[in-house]
Amino acid sequence: MAKKHKTLMFICDGIGDRPIKELGGKTPLEAANAPNMDELARRAICGIVDPIAPGIPAGSDTAHLALLGYDPYQCYTGRGPFEALGVGLTVERGDVAFRLNFGTVEERDGELIVVDRRAGRITEEEGTAELAAALNGIEIEGAKILIKESTAHRAAMIVRGDNLGDGASDIDPHEVGLPVLVSEGENEADKRTAKILNEFTARSYRILNEHPINEKRTDEGKLPANILLPRGIGLAPDIEPISELYGIEGAAAVEVGLIKGIARYVGLDVIELPASINGGLDSDFDLLVQIALGAVEKYDFVLVNAKGPDVAGHDGDATAKVKVIERIDSAIEPLLEIIEERAYLALLADHSTPCSVGDHSGDPVPCLIAGPEVRMDNVESFGERKVTSGGLGRLKGCDILPILLQLAGRAEKFGA
Amino acid sequence: MAKKHKTLMFICDGIGDRPIKELGGKTPLEAANAPNMDELARRAICGIVDPIAPGIPAGSDTAHLALLGYDPYQCYTGRGPFEALGVGLTVERGDVAFRLNFGTVEERDGELIVVDRRAGRITEEEGTAELAAALNGIEIEGAKILIKESTAHRAAMIVRGDNLGDGASDIDPHEVGLPVLVSEGENEADKRTAKILNEFTARSYRILNEHPINEKRTDEGKLPANILLPRGIGLAPDIEPISELYGIEGAAAVEVGLIKGIARYVGLDVIELPASINGGLDSDFDLLVQIALGAVEKYDFVLVNAKGPDVAGHDGDATAKVKVIERIDSAIEPLLEIIEERAYLALLADHSTPCSVGDHSGDPVPCLIAGPEVRMDNVESFGERKVTSGGLGRLKGCDILPILLQLAGRAEKFGA
Repeated sequence: MAKKHKTLMFICDGIGDRPIKELGGKTPLEAANAPNMDELARRAICGIVDPIAPGIPAGSDTAHLALLGYDPYQCYTGRGPFEALGVGLTVERGDVAFRLNFGTVEERDGELIVVDRRAGRITEEEGTAELAAALNGIEIEGAKILIKESTAHRAAMIVRGDNLGDGASDIDPHEVGLPVLVSEGENEADKRTAKILNEFTARSYRILNEHPINEKRTDEGKLPANILLPRGIGLAPDIEPISELYGIEGAAAVEVGLIKGIARYVGLDVIELPASINGGLDSDFDLLVQIALGAVEKYDFVLVNAKGPDVAGHDGDATAKVKVIERIDSAIEPLLEIIEERAYLALLADHSTPCSVGDHSGDPVPCLIAGPEVRMDNVESFGERKVTSGGLGRLKGCDILPILLQLAGRAEKFGA
Repeated sequence: MAKKHKTLMFICDGIGDRPIKELGGKTPLEAANAPNMDELARRAICGIVDPIAPGIPAGSDTAHLALLGYDPYQCYTGRGPFEALGVGLTVERGDVAFRLNFGTVEERDGELIVVDRRAGRITEEEGTAELAAALNGIEIEGAKILIKESTAHRAAMIVRGDNLGDGASDIDPHEVGLPVLVSEGENEADKRTAKILNEFTARSYRILNEHPINEKRTDEGKLPANILLPRGIGLAPDIEPISELYGIEGAAAVEVGLIKGIARYVGLDVIELPASINGGLDSDFDLLVQIALGAVEKYDFVLVNAKGPDVAGHDGDATAKVKVIERIDSAIEPLLEIIEERAYLALLADHSTPCSVGDHSGDPVPCLIAGPEVRMDNVESFGERKVTSGGLGRLKGCDILPILLQLAGRAEKFGA
């Protein structure tokens, strides 16, 4: 029986990019002075990875599901559950989750008419946390309602209880001037969810319309955030925990709420990170790597996500992207040591975030897998184009974890 | 929001080939003097593409479905609908379509016995158009019958009406000396189709047996084409229009009837081409490229098909294939300009048609994707073997359109 090794997946969020004129036709990763990534590439087998499939721009959520070995086309059950994970709600199997808008309604002839779907573009500073708290935890028809504010007028909601369906129709009319819709369902479970939704909506109006924050808003001539409009219904995906699917105990040291939520949902222990690891360009990557190395001692598998390159990509700032890549490169030097004997490492991105696009694109991402016994190839530098001649060829995101685990002696034979 | 670019897919039909002794072990594409394709390759990201899947010889229909971003294993519902598209019938969703043979039957003891399944190898010159017209447009059980002749003894038929099933059994006994079969169905819809088929077959005999063309054939000692035998039943595939599936408005400038039919079916505007663009070795490719460039101004996506290389491959004529590739190469020079800023271009084949095979093979095809921000690789020449070291790696046909669209800023993110 071969020795079992530890495994580490290090995600440089959004590191993939396109050739940029100001960088002499190089990508930020190609332009960066990244001696540690290059040294890892020399000791690794390299390739190019489509996080979801060729040409498909990946979300952070779908990409991380894939990199954790789950088929996102099967697991991704709508925005609701992942929005809820993103704001930090703990999602459990069987939960039905929603995205919500704080909206403004007026009573006319006994109907609630939507006057504004964003409650006058209310912000977090104006007290959405307090408004959400006024409804968080209420029970309707024996089901528990969990609500948490998100950015601006947005929030997320979980309905937790028995026999809930995810086929109840929308409450949100998606247009101003129309009445709040009555949710309906076709089967018993959907009807139950619809009934809860209708009662919830009515209660949200009763409670919020009289809330001091809204009385103050009205006095100031602002639109009150006097209703919550659910949409994007989704049943929390029924997925096997990673410990059962892959036989590993794992942990996640990740900077972003949404990815923490996904990590928790698949059954990874989420490591609480100090405030200096802040998801920004100036995040303390040295400390992040130290925490990851500590986790490698304790767990079979550790997921790390460094958000900086994605932030720079969204900002469209190539210079900042080069710089943050160099900061991450400097921080990962200790990884060169653990791949000698102890661990297998996959270093890659969850998606490309090209500066010219300012958002996720469908361009594939560079990937290296290093460790004691990988079939090292001739790639001498870690870059989107250099790795394409590597020994991994072109893979999909969901292939990476199985490859990592089999190298580490942690995969089961399929067949005899 | 990133700028949206135009997209152009240029199909050199059947360009892929195998090494040929007379060409010094080169393929026709490798042997051709094709400076524009080579220059495109230098400015592109290159790779090798399996139109359907590795080792699967692709039809023109299945390959084009894949290249238009549809899974041919889901969309390809039998030869009938695609034969009908090929002969120029307009196929609509819900249609049931068939291939037909003009056959010869004799009445014996009240049964129609098949004497010849090809009506003495009747040709178009002998009036199959007129015979088909004699049945085209008739109505049976409230369904409309559309018929059009194809090559030699072949024709295609559409049955258009409500509640038609595609599970009715064959009329054609597929063997001479046997009686024409009675079509049967298991469920209501199939039973309805079967009833229409049986009535159609009987009518085709009554009408054709007395047709002047057949009286003349009999006088001349030829077998009369006195029945139409349907086979290859298929329901027109229920596919989403390309405008909904990919959010693009597109057009097709293609030389072949079948591909026009497919283009129309997925919702592309089919551009009528002048007679000098004739699908042959001497087709006016310069004009074809001009028309394509005009369409690029107007549409998000333009599909072009130049048929010549496939014709030469079917003829087994390597010299002619080299020559027609060189003619296409000369014509595509203007494409070098549009990829600088305006458009993303995919240049590839729908399948290989090796001269030694004289038919489509399962060999993959070379592909390049060029445009403002592609991750250009080191491939310096467009050829089946040169492109394999390119940055695209090995892809499937159905990956190409998503890649093209995401580069052009026309793809939607999957997830958040």
